[in-house]
Amino acid sequence: MSKKTIRLLFPQWQGGNNRDYYFGAELLAHIVPQNEQEKLIRIPVNQAFDQPLPIEHGIEGASQLMEQLTATTEILEEENPDKIIILGGDCAVSQAPFDYLAGRYKNNLGILWLDAHPDVATIKDSTRDHEMVLGNLLGKGAPLFAHKVKNVINPENVFFAGLIYDELRPRDQEVNRLNLRHAAPEKLRENSQPILEWIQENQIKELAVHFDLDVLSPQDFRSIYPAEPHLKEFDAAIGSLTLQEVTRILTDTSKQTDIVGLSIAEHMPWDAINLRKALSQISIFNEKG
Amino acid sequence: MSKKTIRLLFPQWQGGNNRDYYFGAELLAHIVPQNEQEKLIRIPVNQAFDQPLPIEHGIEGASQLMEQLTATTEILEEENPDKIIILGGDCAVSQAPFDYLAGRYKNNLGILWLDAHPDVATIKDSTRDHEMVLGNLLGKGAPLFAHKVKNVINPENVFFAGLIYDELRPRDQEVNRLNLRHAAPEKLRENSQPILEWIQENQIKELAVHFDLDVLSPQDFRSIYPAEPHLKEFDAAIGSLTLQEVTRILTDTSKQTDIVGLSIAEHMPWDAINLRKALSQISIFNEKG
Repeated sequence: MSKKTIRLLFPQWQGGNNRDYYFGAELLAHIVPQNEQEKLIRIPVNQAFDQPLPIEHGIEGASQLMEQLTATTEILEEENPDKIIILGGDCAVSQAPFDYLAGRYKNNLGILWLDAHPDVATIKDSTRDHEMVLGNLLGKGAPLFAHKVKNVINPENVFFAGLIYDELRPRDQEVNRLNLRHAAPEKLRENSQPILEWIQENQIKELAVHFDLDVLSPQDFRSIYPAEPHLKEFDAAIGSLTLQEVTRILTDTSKQTDIVGLSIAEHMPWDAINLRKALSQISIFNEKG
Repeated sequence: MSKKTIRLLFPQWQGGNNRDYYFGAELLAHIVPQNEQEKLIRIPVNQAFDQPLPIEHGIEGASQLMEQLTATTEILEEENPDKIIILGGDCAVSQAPFDYLAGRYKNNLGILWLDAHPDVATIKDSTRDHEMVLGNLLGKGAPLFAHKVKNVINPENVFFAGLIYDELRPRDQEVNRLNLRHAAPEKLRENSQPILEWIQENQIKELAVHFDLDVLSPQDFRSIYPAEPHLKEFDAAIGSLTLQEVTRILTDTSKQTDIVGLSIAEHMPWDAINLRKALSQISIFNEKG
């Protein structure tokens, strides 16, 4: 029977409080393989980039984020897809779609979190929803957003791939006690075995993949935050997988499970951002006709 | 009086015999500052990427290039714009528009060639039209294409900026005798004086700018050929200006002249190219619904 796949263009930026995620998502929609048969739905996102985001309930821009979360949930309920491609946007774009998929596939759904960072912070550690989104899905994270999750994920159904190990240091003891499975980049260089074992042990049939592009090495892929040109230092963990390794991981896992969700998050196309800014200063681009 | 600016989306790839210039141009159209008032015209480009380009009259893919050149010339004659933005595509995209502008602005038109390479090769040196396009405009280059130029450019109306000096070595004595003005990147770091002097001495009133993105340093801008991830060696000159320096040069010159043409050429967005290829191998992107 034919399955229904939809694409969500979700240029959310408030979760990381960085307006460039908006443009990053829009450009991403032109980069991914095109498919005219698949519906592309644009999630309405507040574009008041120049107004400061207030901290509400411990979260920067919580009310804008909540509106967008609610809109996404409603769209998914109406569309009722079998599979979802999500073009982000900050990491928090995964909350509504993964919750929806967990409702559809129940305990058969595994979540593969490809990310240099675990995104399980709480409002004690951070004010940014994009660091909490997986926590929210696990019923932890930010209470405001965790309360919206209808299908709380079991910790054993989650696997971190490409995580920089130091990032798993106990930030919040409660999250740490969840004992989430993970494999550092070094464990995945040769093969995808740690992930395939998790799939088998937990009888994962369907997979939702969160692909934060920052799981990649900035030498391999430069359209991510830590790959900013001329950057000297970076104050967070830097990914070290290659696009080729991620592709192999995903083709390997798709032989054992059905990939029913794929979020691509935190696309930060520096060249495009910088070129657009540069050209907007040049007369032929900024004069009225 | 209101001036008419048009945009040409010209995804020509045959001039460099590299299919990725096609996608590079398409993506560029989404990157440049948007303007709904300006007409965007797509030049029809042959997409038989998998067929080898035969060498005809010393040029790879000459008949396809000629068709595209002719189509562009016809569109310009019909549209009759005052100003043209050209979104390339290989460097040869500049031939028809610059010829048209030279017809319109006569000897008041200066050509500022921002490029690591001089693009004045002849069919004795190369088989690729993108290395010959400025030669063609000067009545040299490839005879097949030079013969199509209606308004041959005077050598004193041309200035090379950001050229890697070694590239000016005598390839073809005839071209070298033209004594084209140039400034290496080092001469332009502090200010744009060499270019402003050329403008004044030659009474340039209007300017056509050819901006080959490879005039930029691969550390500053990575969406160019020599910035390929993991590349060890590169067998041609590598640019060393920054986007900021190019922006300053163009804002400085626009105070003294009217920029009536701007080609942006040889956009090679490695991350986008590699990400699209990677995703096309993953089940959720390549299965039928």
